[in-house]
Amino acid sequence: MIKVSVLYPNTSGCKFDMDYYLAQHMPMVQRKLGAACKRMAVDEGIAGGVPGAPATYAAMGHLYCASAEAFQAAFAPHAQAIMADIPNYTNIQPAIQISEVKM
Amino acid sequence: MIKVSVLYPNTSGCKFDMDYYLAQHMPMVQRKLGAACKRMAVDEGIAGGVPGAPATYAAMGHLYCASAEAFQAAFAPHAQAIMADIPNYTNIQPAIQISEVKM
Repeated sequence: MIKVSVLYPNTSGCKFDMDYYLAQHMPMVQRKLGAACKRMAVDEGIAGGVPGAPATYAAMGHLYCASAEAFQAAFAPHAQAIMADIPNYTNIQPAIQISEVKM
Repeated sequence: MIKVSVLYPNTSGCKFDMDYYLAQHMPMVQRKLGAACKRMAVDEGIAGGVPGAPATYAAMGHLYCASAEAFQAAFAPHAQAIMADIPNYTNIQPAIQISEVKM
C-alpha cells in the first residue's frame, strides 16, 4: 500500500479553508479516483514539537492506493480538474510525497 | 484525536534503518506510552510529486492519541529513553508536528 501525502506548508499569510477541503475537495478527489483510492485521511496542523512553535504544515491530505502506478493511472485523467480546485480552498503551494506504508 | 508526526527529512548522506525502527523503536514507544497511544503508523518515503524527485522525508512515524495533553503526559516520563534510541536507527534530526485528525 502506498500513501500520497499532499503537504500544505504553514507559511506566513497562508489561508486554508478546512471546511471546503473536507466537504468539497476531498470527496471530489474520492469520486474522481474511484476504487483506486482505498482510504483518505486529513490532518490539520496545530503545533510544532517545541512549545509555542507553529506546525510545519497547516494541513495534510493523504490518499491510500495499492501502488504508485495505480494512483497515477487513476489520477492522470483528472489531474487538471483536481488541481483547478486548489485555489478554492488555499493559497498554499503544496508539496507531494509518495510513501510506502510500512505499519 | 490528535496525531504526533515525527518527520525525518531526506537529507544528503542520511541513514535510516527501517528494520530497526519497525521492530525495535516503534514497539518500544508503544510500550512506554501504553494506552495513551491508540494507534501508530509508519511511512517510508519513496518519491516526490514530480517524476524523478526524491521524497521530502525519508521516513515518517505517527502516534495517534486522544489529545495533545494525553500525549504529553504519557511521553514526558519516557522522553529521555525514547530520544536516546534515535541514534540507533538514524543520523537524521527529525521535525515534529502535532495535528488534529479531521478525516
